[in-house]
Amino acid sequence: MSSEFDLIRRYFEQPARDVRPGDRRARRVSLGIGDDAALLRPSAGMELAVSTDLLLEGRHFRAGADARKLGHKALAVNLSDMAAMGAAPRWATLALALPAVDEAWLGEFTKGFFALAARFGVELIGGDTTRAAAPGPAPGSIVICVTILGEVPTGLALFRAGARLGDDVWVSGELGGAALALAQPGSAAAARRLDEPEPRVELGERLRGFASAAIDVSDGFAQDLGHILERSGAGAVVEYELLPRSADVKEIQDEKLQARLVLCGGDDYELVFTAPQANRAELAALASDLKLALSRVGSVQSGEARLQVLDARGRPMPVGRGFDHFAP
Amino acid sequence: MSSEFDLIRRYFEQPARDVRPGDRRARRVSLGIGDDAALLRPSAGMELAVSTDLLLEGRHFRAGADARKLGHKALAVNLSDMAAMGAAPRWATLALALPAVDEAWLGEFTKGFFALAARFGVELIGGDTTRAAAPGPAPGSIVICVTILGEVPTGLALFRAGARLGDDVWVSGELGGAALALAQPGSAAAARRLDEPEPRVELGERLRGFASAAIDVSDGFAQDLGHILERSGAGAVVEYELLPRSADVKEIQDEKLQARLVLCGGDDYELVFTAPQANRAELAALASDLKLALSRVGSVQSGEARLQVLDARGRPMPVGRGFDHFAP
Repeated sequence: MSSEFDLIRRYFEQPARDVRPGDRRARRVSLGIGDDAALLRPSAGMELAVSTDLLLEGRHFRAGADARKLGHKALAVNLSDMAAMGAAPRWATLALALPAVDEAWLGEFTKGFFALAARFGVELIGGDTTRAAAPGPAPGSIVICVTILGEVPTGLALFRAGARLGDDVWVSGELGGAALALAQPGSAAAARRLDEPEPRVELGERLRGFASAAIDVSDGFAQDLGHILERSGAGAVVEYELLPRSADVKEIQDEKLQARLVLCGGDDYELVFTAPQANRAELAALASDLKLALSRVGSVQSGEARLQVLDARGRPMPVGRGFDHFAP
Repeated sequence: MSSEFDLIRRYFEQPARDVRPGDRRARRVSLGIGDDAALLRPSAGMELAVSTDLLLEGRHFRAGADARKLGHKALAVNLSDMAAMGAAPRWATLALALPAVDEAWLGEFTKGFFALAARFGVELIGGDTTRAAAPGPAPGSIVICVTILGEVPTGLALFRAGARLGDDVWVSGELGGAALALAQPGSAAAARRLDEPEPRVELGERLRGFASAAIDVSDGFAQDLGHILERSGAGAVVEYELLPRSADVKEIQDEKLQARLVLCGGDDYELVFTAPQANRAELAALASDLKLALSRVGSVQSGEARLQVLDARGRPMPVGRGFDHFAP
């Protein structure tokens, strides 16, 4: 059986070839895996963005989930946090607990993780591996904890607090796909949204200076926009019909289900952001440049931090809660 | 029942008063908990040290472990990694999975965590909380993942690779106490070593420029010194009788057990380091200044990366393996 140290060496020392040549000068890692800590050289004039996410088997992913997709998703949800800050992701640490050494699993997991890392020039700089624990004779379940570090020019980060009266509310891509995969398994497109989300890293970086506030859709559009409103001390009115959704979500006949997926479905990892009306032309150009739909769905209002969603006839719709990890 | 967001606010927004006033200027956190990521301003001329540790109930700590001590230990093991790099700890993230919202537990856990954080001027900048998962109807077990960030002047970090022929081998404090607490429960002093280890942060910072290599004792003296030797491409000879141990470890009549605790006991979180012979006087002065024993226990030899431990008569002793998280 391999020792912990063999494992670390074999699977987690990222091959240099996996990082795009253009990124090497930007990496500035003087020491990676294999010492007590990684050593980085942050760039002058940049702030460091740091975020951490814990993924648990049986809660955030099902037992037996595809290891390669899991490696992708574990990094993707963290990249999405960088996107929401307008930060360029640079480095990540990975802590992993496994019931047993499973080399096939590790090979697939790291394949998914490193393929996404390479696309965004992210280097795995350290981590921790251990055998999963469980009470009694049952095998422990898989635990994945990724911490991501990114850089953003000082003063240009995107915050939740920042939405101003009269700003437009925008959302990227399409909503509800990931939740559809849970509600009605069978759609390959929806499954892909759930299992292999595409973090909007480039959009986040390009929104610096254009968006007034931003967040990523992890708990559902309504709840995540709600965080912007709460932090900004403003309300918003959104037109339900303008919310972007994929063909398979549109096809759902049950209107209540469709509304729930679009408004409250989590795990889409799109960006919701606000921007001054003066930036509409730039944002349209950006959408075209990135080949990514950017939908203008409402506007920021004065008053209490409340979201109103209007249906096609202008009537307020009920807005349920998003995903709360400790809700009853 | 509290929602996740209430929990985060109530327990994890560290009161500013908990950080020593002298540290505030050094913190440079422009944004902490409550956005998609924390934003930090690293200091010019400093490298950033990053390390992450995963602690699992049933593996790294027993079910029902004292929550306050657990909060202390979860941070202490990470601070110890900073100490081993010669880095000053600055910021930490905490990801936590709990079987249920237990406010008494959270109150105690954060008390232990923040008390230690305040002593070293560390700010909790972000995290993730979730309900623990388990297969079937069993409650999930507690998962704690801490990532620590520290700073060290560029070029002055302590590495594992760096030991040179003729260097002395040093160890701080006392060995074997934490392992004694596991082998023979009952000693309060040993239990304290296991449950509330004291990370040697100040020693690590003061060793910059004096030590040639350093590591912290998490897996046992022999194994951790072995990592220095392996990375440095050198051997070492250590005199067993010179290895420091507490009164209760000395009292153990079973000589094999005593040797196993001292040589292979993990979780002591002392520093093992090498230093040129020319630095002996400075290190003696440092020990006196820090009121912390620094024991010179052997020397670095040429040849293969092998540790030889000699008994009182100069005969080689068998050296077992330390703790390997995936060993059979």
